[in-house]
Amino acid sequence: MSVPDSHPRAKSLKLRERLVEGLHAGLVTESGLIAHGRGEALDYLLGERTHDFARRAIEAASAYLTLARHPVLSINGNAAALAAEQFVALAQDDPRLILEVNLFYWTPERVEKIIQRLRDVAQGASPTIFDSRGPGSILLSGSDNPRRQVHPDGIGRADVVLVSLEDGDRCEALLAGGMTVICVDLNPLSRTAQRCQVSIVDELTRCLPVLGECLRRDRGRGRQELEERVRGYDNRQVLADAVTALRHGATD
Amino acid sequence: MSVPDSHPRAKSLKLRERLVEGLHAGLVTESGLIAHGRGEALDYLLGERTHDFARRAIEAASAYLTLARHPVLSINGNAAALAAEQFVALAQDDPRLILEVNLFYWTPERVEKIIQRLRDVAQGASPTIFDSRGPGSILLSGSDNPRRQVHPDGIGRADVVLVSLEDGDRCEALLAGGMTVICVDLNPLSRTAQRCQVSIVDELTRCLPVLGECLRRDRGRGRQELEERVRGYDNRQVLADAVTALRHGATD
Repeated sequence: MSVPDSHPRAKSLKLRERLVEGLHAGLVTESGLIAHGRGEALDYLLGERTHDFARRAIEAASAYLTLARHPVLSINGNAAALAAEQFVALAQDDPRLILEVNLFYWTPERVEKIIQRLRDVAQGASPTIFDSRGPGSILLSGSDNPRRQVHPDGIGRADVVLVSLEDGDRCEALLAGGMTVICVDLNPLSRTAQRCQVSIVDELTRCLPVLGECLRRDRGRGRQELEERVRGYDNRQVLADAVTALRHGATD
Repeated sequence: MSVPDSHPRAKSLKLRERLVEGLHAGLVTESGLIAHGRGEALDYLLGERTHDFARRAIEAASAYLTLARHPVLSINGNAAALAAEQFVALAQDDPRLILEVNLFYWTPERVEKIIQRLRDVAQGASPTIFDSRGPGSILLSGSDNPRRQVHPDGIGRADVVLVSLEDGDRCEALLAGGMTVICVDLNPLSRTAQRCQVSIVDELTRCLPVLGECLRRDRGRGRQELEERVRGYDNRQVLADAVTALRHGATD
C-alpha cells in the first residue's frame, strides 16, 4: 500500500506504514503498534503541529544536551522504526551524542535488528551505538526499578538522556539514577511527561528536525546563555499548556 | 503475560491482550492494533466510562433495532476479537438480530476464522452469520463507494445496521443504500460518527451489555413509545456533548 502525498493525512498514514513495516522487520512489537495508535489520537487532537509549548521544551532540551558532559539518546523499537535516520543525523552532526538501544521487550535478535537498522541508515558513518541489556550491562543505583539496566559507557555514565515514546518505569529509573531526562511524549498526562525535567509534547519525527536546528545553533553559543535558558525553563507551565491544547484545541 | 485484576488499568490492558491474541489468531490486522490504540487514547480522555450522551444514543439504538424489520449487527476483526461473546449473546437473546462479518482487509481465511470464533463462543446455539464478501454477495445501490459489498440476506435486506469500529467509507455506503446506521465509535469527530443517525461514543465492550439490557426491556414496549423515542433523539446534541467531554473532560 502506498499513500499519495496529496492525501490530507498522508504524513500520519506514512508513519503508520513505517510502524507496520517495523513490525514485519522485527523492530516493533504488537504493543508498539497499539502505543502508536494512542499517539496518533493525541496528535490528532493537538492538530498535528508543533505547538509553542513544544518549541520551548525543545529549546530547553537543546541547552541541556549542549551543556551535557555525556549526553545519550535512548532509542526503542518504535523510535527506530519511525526516526532511525533522524537520530543518526543528530549523532552524525554532534559525535558527543551517543545512541543507546533500550527495549521493553528485549531479545538479542530484536536489539541486533535495531542496531543494524541504525548502522544501515548511517551509511558507513555510524555513530556509537550501545545496547542497554547487552553483555556487561549494569544496574543503575538509586532504586530497585526493574527497568534500571543500562550500558556502562552509555546511559551508565550519562548526565542527560533523551527518551522517546518511553514507559514510566524507565523514566523513573533514569531519574533515580540522578540523570536529567528529556522525553518526547504526546501525552502530557503520562507518568514520563509528568516526572521528567523536559517534556517535549510533540510527534517524534516532527520535533527531531527542530531539535537538530537548535543543537547546531547552540553549539556556537556560550555556556552562560545556555545555563540561563535552562534556569528560566518551566516544565510545569509547558505541561499545563499542553494539557490545555489537548483539551481545548487551543491555538498558540 | 497476564494482568492482575487489581491493576488500575486492568480492563484496558486485558482488551489490549485480546487484540494482540486476535492478531496472532489471524482475526485482527496490524492496522487494527493501531486503530485500537487510537481508541484507547480517546477512551482515556473520556475517563473510561459510559457517559450520559452514550446512554442516550444506546436508548435510541435499542428503539431503532427493536422497531426494525431486518436489523443486522456488522462485525469486523477488532469487534470479533474484543466482543465475540457479547455480539453472539445479543443475537441469541433476539434471533431477529443477524450477524454479518465485514472486513476492510478481506481474505477467505480471515473471514472464516472470524465466523468460526463467533460459532465457537455460541456453543452450539449459533445465530445466523453472513460474510459481506462471500459467494453471492451484492453491491448496494445508491453510490459507487468501494465498500458497498454486502450479503443479500444480511445487510442487503437490512433497514437498520449497527457498525462498530468501522471506517467512514463503509458507513457512507450503508447510508447511501438507504439504511439507518448506528455506530459505536470513540471519536465523535470521525466521519462515521458525524454522518450516521445514532453515534454511540463509548468503548465497545462497555456499551454492548447496556444495549443488551435496553433491548430486552424494549421488546416488551409498544411501537408508539419506541417511535416517540426515535423522534425525540438528537444525534447532533449527543455528538456535541461527546466533543465537550473529550475536550474538557466534563462530567455529566
